[in-house]
Amino acid sequence: MKLNIALLAGDGIGPEVINEAVKVSDAIAQKFGHEITWKPALTGAAAIDAVGEPYPDSTHEVCKNADAVLFGAIGHPKYDNDPSAPVRPEQGLLKMRKALGLFANVRPTFTFPSLLDKSPLKRERIEGTDLVFLRELTGGIYFGEKGRKDNGDTAYDNCVYTRAEVQRLAKKGFELAMTRSKKLCCVDKANVLETSRLWRETVQAMEKDYPEVEVSYEFVDAVAMRLVQWPNSYDVLITENLFGDILTDEASVISGSMGLMPSASMGAEVSLFEPIHGSYPQATGLNIANPMATILSAAMMFENFGLIEEGKAMRDAVNKALEAGVVTEDLANGGKAYGTKEVGDWLAANV
Amino acid sequence: MKLNIALLAGDGIGPEVINEAVKVSDAIAQKFGHEITWKPALTGAAAIDAVGEPYPDSTHEVCKNADAVLFGAIGHPKYDNDPSAPVRPEQGLLKMRKALGLFANVRPTFTFPSLLDKSPLKRERIEGTDLVFLRELTGGIYFGEKGRKDNGDTAYDNCVYTRAEVQRLAKKGFELAMTRSKKLCCVDKANVLETSRLWRETVQAMEKDYPEVEVSYEFVDAVAMRLVQWPNSYDVLITENLFGDILTDEASVISGSMGLMPSASMGAEVSLFEPIHGSYPQATGLNIANPMATILSAAMMFENFGLIEEGKAMRDAVNKALEAGVVTEDLANGGKAYGTKEVGDWLAANV
Ligand SMILES: CC(C)[C@H](C(=O)O)[C@@H](O)C(=O)O
Ligand SMILES: CC(C)[C@H](C(=O)O)[C@@H](O)C(=O)O
Repeated sequence: MKLNIALLAGDGIGPEVINEAVKVSDAIAQKFGHEITWKPALTGAAAIDAVGEPYPDSTHEVCKNADAVLFGAIGHPKYDNDPSAPVRPEQGLLKMRKALGLFANVRPTFTFPSLLDKSPLKRERIEGTDLVFLRELTGGIYFGEKGRKDNGDTAYDNCVYTRAEVQRLAKKGFELAMTRSKKLCCVDKANVLETSRLWRETVQAMEKDYPEVEVSYEFVDAVAMRLVQWPNSYDVLITENLFGDILTDEASVISGSMGLMPSASMGAEVSLFEPIHGSYPQATGLNIANPMATILSAAMMFENFGLIEEGKAMRDAVNKALEAGVVTEDLANGGKAYGTKEVGDWLAANV
Repeated sequence: MKLNIALLAGDGIGPEVINEAVKVSDAIAQKFGHEITWKPALTGAAAIDAVGEPYPDSTHEVCKNADAVLFGAIGHPKYDNDPSAPVRPEQGLLKMRKALGLFANVRPTFTFPSLLDKSPLKRERIEGTDLVFLRELTGGIYFGEKGRKDNGDTAYDNCVYTRAEVQRLAKKGFELAMTRSKKLCCVDKANVLETSRLWRETVQAMEKDYPEVEVSYEFVDAVAMRLVQWPNSYDVLITENLFGDILTDEASVISGSMGLMPSASMGAEVSLFEPIHGSYPQATGLNIANPMATILSAAMMFENFGLIEEGKAMRDAVNKALEAGVVTEDLANGGKAYGTKEVGDWLAANV
């Protein structure tokens, strides 16, 4: 296969982890006879510094014309804690999601036996957890009309959803559930919100098309509790943008393997793959960042092209590295710590 | 002191736990020379069954004219999972909050040494946790304009906040922080929402009035993570209605003592006190429900009247009962389980 991949390294440790993902992806391509052309483009604080905006048109061109986007991380302390700054890296993120139509954010949370003890949760609570959130990513209160009235003394944010938006996301949820344990949980706040009632009635109406899928409906506050109590009781969860923001972050820390969690944002035309961790500015350039989440994101990318074997080879290599202790300092547990590059080299040699 | 307390027992185990709170409060009143007049009124499913609505005007009259409201729990399975039913107990809850102006929901999460092992979190993560959420309770997306357009295919919920609403809640937060460790965390999503930017700028402008309070600003998704990772790093947290709904429920399960957590909803005129647990319909009438959270809510009520000794006497009695193993089956750990009534009797005798 010939693959054209937009490469958005971003800020902080982004470029370093992206380098290793490229290295391992190239090794896979060579092994399986594919050809990858990488198209680097600017984003985040790096793009603001260079051209004054976080998601420039030139970057959009590259992404739009690519078969997929591989993304590092964005965010820089100089833009932190000043949500009123005129230009901020996050604006680029939102603009990119909307412009590329990345409507479904796929965020798995799973456990690695060798990392279970890193979880803040007791072993018996977290063992066996393997869930996936599908978060709607281009609608809701993120993109509704917002502003001020009364000389700035009143602020408003409008949350809007259409039935078609819900159907599009829910369809992905049902399809994913069919490939897994056929359990789907729709997370909403239908006891309070009209948008949630639309979500619930739309999903309810789709149940008949997937008779094998067992659907449950839970309120967002209840899910926030049960994720801590019994995370392994969940499988596929679908939810709207803001609830997804909160719950996927909550879910990401329960496994103890946050540094290893990949994600995908799926669009109708192009999809984007990125680690869920941030840009860790303090670690920039130190060759200590863990590249595994980005490499597992590249694995999701291969799988999304239907290249299941390729993805599996990458996952297997990561598992082998974890077992062999070829890990960065965050996972070294007092043992030998490898550098970002060395972990990438080992994985490239072992796929 | 002469106290006039509206008594809203509600549904499920509500009446049973309320009975014990009345018993222990009366014992306190006798010991300290106060006189409590209890004014029972209907609410929840019980009120729907009796008069067709969950928060009847007659109940509002009783609450409005009381010095405080002691509340049990509402919710009944016959109204569950049908958010589109024409009359539901939750509507009564929202109507009551708005009508009584209960703008600040105070939800502490703390640990009891004897219950630490019940937490889903590892002991070293949860030990020493003692935080309080102040959740804004009468504004935001709960009460904004909501509805449908496009023949029902588009739904919307508007989130609105005014500067005055934020100030009112934040003031309580600063004041509470001054009585504790002088740390205040403002939880928002100011990188996306205009209402959050109003929250943040309003709180920032108030910092100068409380120079001793150290204020931090965190995004709601980051707090959802850190609550699981390092709950004991928080002290007082203030937030808007929907974020508060999700985060206080998340916080309630981390301590392992959910069945013991009290809460208060403060208004300008009258305040309401209630356990955070639900109406546990399955346990109704079995004399097995744990009355301690309701009794600790009554302790908060006394403290809110400035009756600090009285509140402390109730808290001390609960601690003694926990140490002596005078507990209901949820806390019995295979040991002897006492009934709801027997725990109440013991506490009334020991305050
Ligand atoms: C940076 C922010 C705008 C973003 C979001 O809220 O979507 C982030 O938290 C995420 O989840 O990707
Ligand atoms: C029942 C529901 C409307 C309510 C809320 O969302 O406020 C509940 O979850 C709560 O937190 O008291």
